[in-house]
Amino acid sequence: FTKICDVLIEEILNELPQKYELPPRETEWLRKMLEHTVKGGKMNRGLMVVESGVAIIGKDNITNTKLCQLAVLGWAIEWLQAWLLVADDIMDSSVTRRGQPCWYKTLGDAWYIAINDAVTIEAFVYRMIKHHFGYDSDLQLQLLDLMMETTLQTELGQLSDTLCDVLTLSDLTPERWQLIVKYKTSFYSFYLSVAFAMTLAGVTDKEAYNAARDILIEMGVYFQAQDDFLDCYGSHEVLGKIGTDIADKKCGWLFTKAYHELANETQKAYLDEHYGKCTVDSPEEIKIKELYTELGLKEIYAKYEQDSYDKIMSMKDSQAGETLNRAGVPWTVFEKFLAKVYKR
Amino acid sequence: FTKICDVLIEEILNELPQKYELPPRETEWLRKMLEHTVKGGKMNRGLMVVESGVAIIGKDNITNTKLCQLAVLGWAIEWLQAWLLVADDIMDSSVTRRGQPCWYKTLGDAWYIAINDAVTIEAFVYRMIKHHFGYDSDLQLQLLDLMMETTLQTELGQLSDTLCDVLTLSDLTPERWQLIVKYKTSFYSFYLSVAFAMTLAGVTDKEAYNAARDILIEMGVYFQAQDDFLDCYGSHEVLGKIGTDIADKKCGWLFTKAYHELANETQKAYLDEHYGKCTVDSPEEIKIKELYTELGLKEIYAKYEQDSYDKIMSMKDSQAGETLNRAGVPWTVFEKFLAKVYKR
Repeated sequence: FTKICDVLIEEILNELPQKYELPPRETEWLRKMLEHTVKGGKMNRGLMVVESGVAIIGKDNITNTKLCQLAVLGWAIEWLQAWLLVADDIMDSSVTRRGQPCWYKTLGDAWYIAINDAVTIEAFVYRMIKHHFGYDSDLQLQLLDLMMETTLQTELGQLSDTLCDVLTLSDLTPERWQLIVKYKTSFYSFYLSVAFAMTLAGVTDKEAYNAARDILIEMGVYFQAQDDFLDCYGSHEVLGKIGTDIADKKCGWLFTKAYHELANETQKAYLDEHYGKCTVDSPEEIKIKELYTELGLKEIYAKYEQDSYDKIMSMKDSQAGETLNRAGVPWTVFEKFLAKVYKR
Repeated sequence: FTKICDVLIEEILNELPQKYELPPRETEWLRKMLEHTVKGGKMNRGLMVVESGVAIIGKDNITNTKLCQLAVLGWAIEWLQAWLLVADDIMDSSVTRRGQPCWYKTLGDAWYIAINDAVTIEAFVYRMIKHHFGYDSDLQLQLLDLMMETTLQTELGQLSDTLCDVLTLSDLTPERWQLIVKYKTSFYSFYLSVAFAMTLAGVTDKEAYNAARDILIEMGVYFQAQDDFLDCYGSHEVLGKIGTDIADKKCGWLFTKAYHELANETQKAYLDEHYGKCTVDSPEEIKIKELYTELGLKEIYAKYEQDSYDKIMSMKDSQAGETLNRAGVPWTVFEKFLAKVYKR
């Protein structure tokens, strides 16, 4: 799978000097940029395209060509994620990403070139799809459509997320949390991988796509709740980053539960005074974490995690599971995905 | 034409709360953002799609439906330009645009949301094309392909342009200037308008597209030379902005001519010492402008302008002109475009 990424980088870079008259310095810049931004992740999203595709088409029926095509689509998602992260890191003033400095941070005073770099990766993804699927214009249009729809959904989620900076705490409700994470995470991190595999496998039943979407959105929402929980309670060593949700006034799972469902007037007043206004590791931040613990959020989260797991597993025998089974999408696809994220 | 933009904004905003569950505050944000960013330009690019389409299809044959479709494609280019400019203004730290503050400047501390806004406009353009041309998947794919190809070309041009910040003066050659302006300006500002109109009119002859591209790239290059000339010699009142090319170390038409073709050793040394290092209206900047004048650049530009005009007009009777005529694309298309930009 990793090798396919190198092939894709070479394909793109090779045509730039010829087809687009790009000078050597620019081509080198883009090589360095791609190497830094698209590699180094866990590749869960990309690998899931391949695993889902193999599960749908069947181990015995799959050809080498199809395997490579699945890998190309896997990298299309990884590259999509790469450009979203480059832009996101600039927007969040982040410092590190995947244990390295963020791309824009490596550029010093010329950080702003990273904005153009981000959208250039996006354009490369569209070219990559044209290059590998242009032989079948129906397929190409379906893949582009999935890509463009998911990109818009993610951008709308990002808008809801960043607008929290200018909202009051009473606006940061559990409903708003649910909406933000569905749009900013679930579609591109969960649904897109399986939808790409289904499209390449030739699944045409619209109901099957809807059923897969329902299951995978549920999974994405759980995944983000877990991410929010770990931001507060995870150890720095395991995460490779320091949680900043309380200092950054994020609309996180713990906060929305605490503020809108569990806290009494005194506790709410404390949050009003300090949430989003204290710094990381300050006494106020530590006190908010203690407050979360007092409110029983560790136990509530454990129950939420179990409920969420049960709910997703119960979908196997629901209408959705049957629709998918009939369309040739086996339940193992979803079990594999869940295994990758459950109790990380 | 302006009314069609309002219709497009309404169409997009109407489906956001339903299809994407977007809350009212987010929808209002996007309304304000679109009103600020996509309107207020001269609309040359957009209007040229309509004028070219009418010229190709013929005044008597054109239906109201086709006229509206041409207007939609016109606005697709205007919106493409809008998101490029939002991103470009952040990258250049610009202050004003079209006589108003830049969009990111209106957001104060939350300026970074404008990065997401820029790519959201891009996603809206793809949705707009799907919404209006999805009934014909071949046409939709052709239009998307033109859009995506042009976007990549423009982004590669932007890269070459911004990399000048980290290059030495000897790298800023007339050849590099030619390459930058072809990619960052000509494709999206000139070729795309006519190519959209040709596609909607059903022109399929590939040679005709190549011929149109050759003519329109020539026009785009002239347009940018003019822009560079006006940055130095145009009056602030007419331009609505203050020229900053000398202070910003831009790879401009005047500089590349002066440094690489006209200046003697003393004059080159002066440029080495002050070009890109002085501020706007400083004695050094004024002296560089005087140096340009001494080198005869006003006269050389006047001759370049005339030669460029003659060259483009001579294409009417060349192979390119004939190919286009045979494909049903009348020469008036190019004359109209030239009339809009020549001797502004």
